[in-house]
Amino acid sequence: MSEDFAPVNPPEGKQLRAAQERHLQLTKPPGSLGRLEEIGAWIASCQREVPPHPLRRPRVVIFAGDHGIAAHGVSAYPSEVTAQMVLNFVTGGAAINVLAANAGASVRVVDLSVDTDLDLGPGVSEFKVRRSSGSIDREDALSEDEVRKAIAAGKAIADQEVDEGADLLIAGDMGIGNTTPSAVLIASITGQEPVAVVGRGTGIDDAGWMRKAVAVRDALRRARPVSTDPVALLRTAAGADIAAMAAFLAQAAVRNTPVILDGVVSGAAALVAQELAPGARDWWIAGHRSVEPAHTLVLDHLDLKPLLEFDMRLGEGSGAVAALPLVNAAVRILGEMATFADAGVTDKS
Amino acid sequence: MSEDFAPVNPPEGKQLRAAQERHLQLTKPPGSLGRLEEIGAWIASCQREVPPHPLRRPRVVIFAGDHGIAAHGVSAYPSEVTAQMVLNFVTGGAAINVLAANAGASVRVVDLSVDTDLDLGPGVSEFKVRRSSGSIDREDALSEDEVRKAIAAGKAIADQEVDEGADLLIAGDMGIGNTTPSAVLIASITGQEPVAVVGRGTGIDDAGWMRKAVAVRDALRRARPVSTDPVALLRTAAGADIAAMAAFLAQAAVRNTPVILDGVVSGAAALVAQELAPGARDWWIAGHRSVEPAHTLVLDHLDLKPLLEFDMRLGEGSGAVAALPLVNAAVRILGEMATFADAGVTDKS
Repeated sequence: MSEDFAPVNPPEGKQLRAAQERHLQLTKPPGSLGRLEEIGAWIASCQREVPPHPLRRPRVVIFAGDHGIAAHGVSAYPSEVTAQMVLNFVTGGAAINVLAANAGASVRVVDLSVDTDLDLGPGVSEFKVRRSSGSIDREDALSEDEVRKAIAAGKAIADQEVDEGADLLIAGDMGIGNTTPSAVLIASITGQEPVAVVGRGTGIDDAGWMRKAVAVRDALRRARPVSTDPVALLRTAAGADIAAMAAFLAQAAVRNTPVILDGVVSGAAALVAQELAPGARDWWIAGHRSVEPAHTLVLDHLDLKPLLEFDMRLGEGSGAVAALPLVNAAVRILGEMATFADAGVTDKS
Repeated sequence: MSEDFAPVNPPEGKQLRAAQERHLQLTKPPGSLGRLEEIGAWIASCQREVPPHPLRRPRVVIFAGDHGIAAHGVSAYPSEVTAQMVLNFVTGGAAINVLAANAGASVRVVDLSVDTDLDLGPGVSEFKVRRSSGSIDREDALSEDEVRKAIAAGKAIADQEVDEGADLLIAGDMGIGNTTPSAVLIASITGQEPVAVVGRGTGIDDAGWMRKAVAVRDALRRARPVSTDPVALLRTAAGADIAAMAAFLAQAAVRNTPVILDGVVSGAAALVAQELAPGARDWWIAGHRSVEPAHTLVLDHLDLKPLLEFDMRLGEGSGAVAALPLVNAAVRILGEMATFADAGVTDKS
């Protein structure tokens, strides 16, 4: 069935150790590059190659969808912005486009559930499940059939990307209102109360924050009974975009492909992905810590330490792509530095 | 006189505000790119240009020199490694070369006081002051004449680089034993005790740490009386490499050129540079927070928040260059993103 995932194999411990060993031979004091050393060794273990090859095709996939809950005053922007921003991604004017160009990554945008019948670009709506998702404070986000379609879409997109040579994946999000279902998924899986997970998203005021907290409370009441069943949880409280993203993250791990996680939406999807495909988490690093309070709960739950703490809260994959040059640097260090023997440098006694 | 610096003008407040204003028009929620927005606006204010132009010639200058104190067991490596590493920089095999290539920067290495008569590469020893510097626990690092020569060298190097088009500078360090004078300078300027500033440098053991703490205590006794006279402090407790670096950082600010600071050695030089040329600090950001405890004292004293916390402790400018892609990203965001008007996206109400 579409919601079944093949077992996840962990990154290769033998190559991790070989990369750590190589680090000791490079012309620097042992451990002196700190996290850059850890990241490089981790990528080597993902690639099963020491030194790892430079990333050839790092790829951002943005999962776009609207949310019924946005009609109830939980966002600073109207739902029409989702489709407008998808067009902005396609024409290359958004933050993610600029950050991806800066980091040598390419961007794909997929419309799972944008609230429009318009064609948003070539191939963009190939996997469309529906217009918007249900208002999760009062109804399920998706039907049984729709959640299966969304999961199948995410899985198929990951397969397409890996088949086409992607060697690092980033899942970005676009959807007005999408931090509300994210907060619900996170509270549900980590067992937190609404007040701990509700943030200001794109920038709501105090009254908006209160409406959002009420929506999260009501949705959480509907989600709690299915919190240990990831597919039912996606159906009840996610939306087609987030369900597809969760499946994408799970399948990326099944396909042995490292991922840089972004902020609170990709974090919510990641929590579910780890339930869909246990062990997927070993294929991930966290690009940044978002301002959204629920994101820190995700990082703690998955035991991931973010690369950047930049007070970002944009989504789109922006915090993950911002960190990508650091991953590139870590990979190149292992491949391009001279060893003590090469350079005729005296090693530590 | 060589030790006098022209007044430092602050980065342009008008352009800072214009850049902040431009950020509000770009297709993203206000403030959602966090520190990337701040950095972009700061570069715009340094360049006096909105949007700022992409960095054309980011440049790393490594200040190399040996230290007499290294003969007294304060480092995990012998002094001969300094010259060997300079050759490694020249042939491109060191961490800084790989990180600079990854970030689009170029590297220059300058031998101020390496303990050798060998020619270390074309032009590398043009500004050489002496072989090694005095053992600061028992003698001055430099004579009156030498400290003036070192300061003149740092100033001339900054002028050369800016004249040749460098639009962002990074000062790197190479010198076995150089975290000991750095600790002394930092303790002297921030009024801290030896135990608060002594770290493990390239990786000394407990006995080495104790020898280093004793050396710092003795050197600090010699330095305290001149702690408010930056030139006398450099003469007493720095060395030709660090004195030149301090002058380089001061002159970069005089020449309106932004700098990414690296770790504890560039931090020590920066503290002195701010005394030599008050206001220089406004031209700096901190690339990272080093593992060395004294570095946090520098960051606090200068009120700088590091971009990365990566547990690095290599020097060479590595922590600054690792952060350079983030600065490039911040600059490109301001220049390349679409505005709400351009993209036909509905702005926040």
